[in-house]
Amino acid sequence: MHQSSTLITPPTRPMVWHGWGDPAQRPGLSRRAEGYLAAEIGPLDRHTPPVALDDVRVGDSALTGAARAALAEVVGEAHVADDRLTRIEHAGGKSYPDLLRRRLGDAVAAPDAVVLPGSHDEVAAVLQVAVREGIAVVPFGGGTSVVGGVEPERGGFHALIALDLARMDRLVSLDEDSLLATFEPGIRGPVAEAELRRRGYTLGHFPQSYAYASIGGYVATRSAGQASTGHGRIDENVHAVRLATPAGDLAFGRSPATAAGPDLRGVAVGSEGLLGVITEATLRVAHAPEVEVHEAVAVRSFAEGSALLRDLIQSGVAPDVCRLSDEDETRVFAQQSEGLKGRAFRGWLRLRGYGDGCLVILGWDGPADRVALRRSLARRVLAGHDVLRLGTRPGDAWAHGRFNGPYLRDELMDRGIMVETLETATTWTRQAELHAAVRRALSDALADHGTPAVVLCHVSHLYEAGCSLYFTWICRQAVGAELEQWRDAKTAACRAIVEAGGTITHHHAVGTDHRPYMADEVGDLGVALLRAMKDVVDPTGVLNPGKLIPGPP
Amino acid sequence: MHQSSTLITPPTRPMVWHGWGDPAQRPGLSRRAEGYLAAEIGPLDRHTPPVALDDVRVGDSALTGAARAALAEVVGEAHVADDRLTRIEHAGGKSYPDLLRRRLGDAVAAPDAVVLPGSHDEVAAVLQVAVREGIAVVPFGGGTSVVGGVEPERGGFHALIALDLARMDRLVSLDEDSLLATFEPGIRGPVAEAELRRRGYTLGHFPQSYAYASIGGYVATRSAGQASTGHGRIDENVHAVRLATPAGDLAFGRSPATAAGPDLRGVAVGSEGLLGVITEATLRVAHAPEVEVHEAVAVRSFAEGSALLRDLIQSGVAPDVCRLSDEDETRVFAQQSEGLKGRAFRGWLRLRGYGDGCLVILGWDGPADRVALRRSLARRVLAGHDVLRLGTRPGDAWAHGRFNGPYLRDELMDRGIMVETLETATTWTRQAELHAAVRRALSDALADHGTPAVVLCHVSHLYEAGCSLYFTWICRQAVGAELEQWRDAKTAACRAIVEAGGTITHHHAVGTDHRPYMADEVGDLGVALLRAMKDVVDPTGVLNPGKLIPGPP
Repeated sequence: MHQSSTLITPPTRPMVWHGWGDPAQRPGLSRRAEGYLAAEIGPLDRHTPPVALDDVRVGDSALTGAARAALAEVVGEAHVADDRLTRIEHAGGKSYPDLLRRRLGDAVAAPDAVVLPGSHDEVAAVLQVAVREGIAVVPFGGGTSVVGGVEPERGGFHALIALDLARMDRLVSLDEDSLLATFEPGIRGPVAEAELRRRGYTLGHFPQSYAYASIGGYVATRSAGQASTGHGRIDENVHAVRLATPAGDLAFGRSPATAAGPDLRGVAVGSEGLLGVITEATLRVAHAPEVEVHEAVAVRSFAEGSALLRDLIQSGVAPDVCRLSDEDETRVFAQQSEGLKGRAFRGWLRLRGYGDGCLVILGWDGPADRVALRRSLARRVLAGHDVLRLGTRPGDAWAHGRFNGPYLRDELMDRGIMVETLETATTWTRQAELHAAVRRALSDALADHGTPAVVLCHVSHLYEAGCSLYFTWICRQAVGAELEQWRDAKTAACRAIVEAGGTITHHHAVGTDHRPYMADEVGDLGVALLRAMKDVVDPTGVLNPGKLIPGPP
Repeated sequence: MHQSSTLITPPTRPMVWHGWGDPAQRPGLSRRAEGYLAAEIGPLDRHTPPVALDDVRVGDSALTGAARAALAEVVGEAHVADDRLTRIEHAGGKSYPDLLRRRLGDAVAAPDAVVLPGSHDEVAAVLQVAVREGIAVVPFGGGTSVVGGVEPERGGFHALIALDLARMDRLVSLDEDSLLATFEPGIRGPVAEAELRRRGYTLGHFPQSYAYASIGGYVATRSAGQASTGHGRIDENVHAVRLATPAGDLAFGRSPATAAGPDLRGVAVGSEGLLGVITEATLRVAHAPEVEVHEAVAVRSFAEGSALLRDLIQSGVAPDVCRLSDEDETRVFAQQSEGLKGRAFRGWLRLRGYGDGCLVILGWDGPADRVALRRSLARRVLAGHDVLRLGTRPGDAWAHGRFNGPYLRDELMDRGIMVETLETATTWTRQAELHAAVRRALSDALADHGTPAVVLCHVSHLYEAGCSLYFTWICRQAVGAELEQWRDAKTAACRAIVEAGGTITHHHAVGTDHRPYMADEVGDLGVALLRAMKDVVDPTGVLNPGKLIPGPP
């Protein structure tokens, strides 16, 4: 199975400091896609590579000798890194503004040191040092945040360390009767999956950041993966979680379910490093699939596709992967995908009366007989809708390129192009309005900068009550005002989401980028609840300042 | 459909003050069950009816005239009740110790008045009066708590009101596209279900307290119903929730799912009136079922039955209702159920080589074709286990008597018998040990009082990772030491649960009875998180003192 081998092959090299993954693995932009983008947003003729590593600006480490020695005493001298490259590699996550800054040579805010603990007790001890010495601590898993979740914001402290959990990378235990696996937080997606597949299990969790993201990061950010419609979001799959905090340990999850008061397990999940450092997570696993199938259908419009998806999920027969691209995203997908013969594909759709049409990817995994049964049940639902079945080739094309988005961003950023994504979710009832509102907000905001955009959208996670919406926009960078251009577009989209009743983030988390909208999401009093919990576990505020909770750093 | 008509017929009379429901509806104890119990625990020859209403002791109302007037100004004079019967009716919930006290004539702690708000704004205004006047407030839905969740504990305040939500009993709206229904909190189970069935939907939530319990109570206590294996616990079905608190309003749930930080919706759910009064809840609904089927199988032992249930849920084909009685509960069920011919039933099991055997009830509901398909898939799993199929008669017998437990308790309490239940949950791996530990703890504790007990248990909620365990014990009351006897048994069972790694409550909630174990459940630091949130929304502590959160009232 082609897919499975992809899923259990970890990258051989660490992520490049200025972009995604291993540049040697970067797929190119297809000629057709290039031509399409040029026609839509203007020529892709600029050459805007990242500065050379030597030209990146990094401040001197502000860590005192005493503090450094205290940290080294906890984790060992070998596990306190303050060399230039390591600090630059931890100078933020992988959001568009993060990359923009680093590509332009700005890593001035880089952590003063990167500390790599080897155990829960070492994490707890590092936090004690941080409190005593007044050092901000950014818990750092895969470093793949696209919302500023690992920004080195000092929050008034004189120094800051990144607490890199890479050494805590074990599958601690597997309870096969209860289908539960306990992991250390720093284990990466493919490594965790390989450990499980070797024993006959799967986590079934495949976010686009999969190759580099860590289990602890999944849990800290309420991650959702491409198969989460079937396998569930990570928050639905957390059985137990343990955290180290400056005020002591937290441990939640004695049982699959409980009525013992408010859900504190659900508070730890999504706490983004502000309420403690996750040092262990017990997750539900499933039996490894015998088969994986990705097929595709075309529908006439995004509205008809949405009606189909709603019918599938509400009939209880949704596939594990269920993904609907809107008209514009379908067009770009057809241009970029190998083997799909973009113009021919669209021509064919038109010929069959589907106009531009929208692409739906349906993916199943599991035991062969169950997949066959589920597909046949889904076909009955499909039969009630006006769909054109496209077979498995577009599905395979999607699966083949499913983790490539961040690489294409680097490719485009090298050519003076902005590519950014954001996501939300709402009820089926409000979905069309939210889709229109965000598209309009992004298009208008970018047009105001004189950089007309292609705005794409897909649905990728279904719920009985509604679905996610994932937007991508592509436009020429506003030269010299790249960050302002990004901020204006982001702000316009976020305000549109809030006003249309969507959630400010469905699976990217809050970080710094969505922090200004938390009061819209949970109210001022909700923010006060978060702040009060923060004050209990982290009274001096060393944990990940400037993220998630609005108000004082 | 017999069952459906039961489910949408609300009781015609309010609950009797000294017991469950409408005594005119109380089913008797079968002769066989009576003989069985007499043989096991000694003669049922005492006559211990409740005292006459006139003999119940109630203190004078401590409410000042000014406070009473201020409350009446908010809700209207007609909606402040301080007559003797109303106060006695609100002097607690329906736990064994609650009933014991009232049956013995003790309602001294009864609320000083019962206040019935008509809207969110009135709830908010009542809370302002309570804060200003220093009055404790017990939010009161159906009043069916079996863990002391509506005990009139004053927590140092000079007066206490029950905030009865019975007037807030509307289905506010129904979003048919998104399968979401918004309710006021005071609507009772059968009324809500009737409103939904009339429109073609169901909530699918049927706790044993169903006839009287309220939607707000479900949400405040993380309720689970008899079909929750299929339809999900209430906490899995809450889309949005609104609360009034002394510090302002809380509203969570903009989307089916979100990554916007810690799950505050999950904090409001299960907050048991301590973090605010739930004034509106939006719940997921399903299409009303075309068919309902309850069938039964016998297995040789509780261990074999547990293995079967685990296989069903982990194969993805668990029924909506899935219930396994242990050997002792199977014996009592066979004695008590109409049409099952207890001795003959057991003799038959023995003849077929199933020894005493254990009963498994499997219930399906939904569209006829889906139910047929799901049953056939489950039959394949059953075929891999050593089961004796018993057809639908025992399933129907269970369904017929499914809400009768609380009535039988009254019947037995009239005859000097203690009947109490408690419940927990754990992983499949720990289930057998937890079952044994709690049985042993209860048996030993009651034997120490010279009152040997029948201890029964069933599994009634399945999860991929584990299941619930629901214990019932029956023994003669220790005359003159009834409350001590209860407390000793309860304490022993709770300690056993904590030590065996179970949750202190799977669906009854915390209330006063499980409060001493919250630090075992979530740790001292977890308790501090709850306390900190409480201090934000209710700084003077008027909301439901003495429940849920250990520490100062």
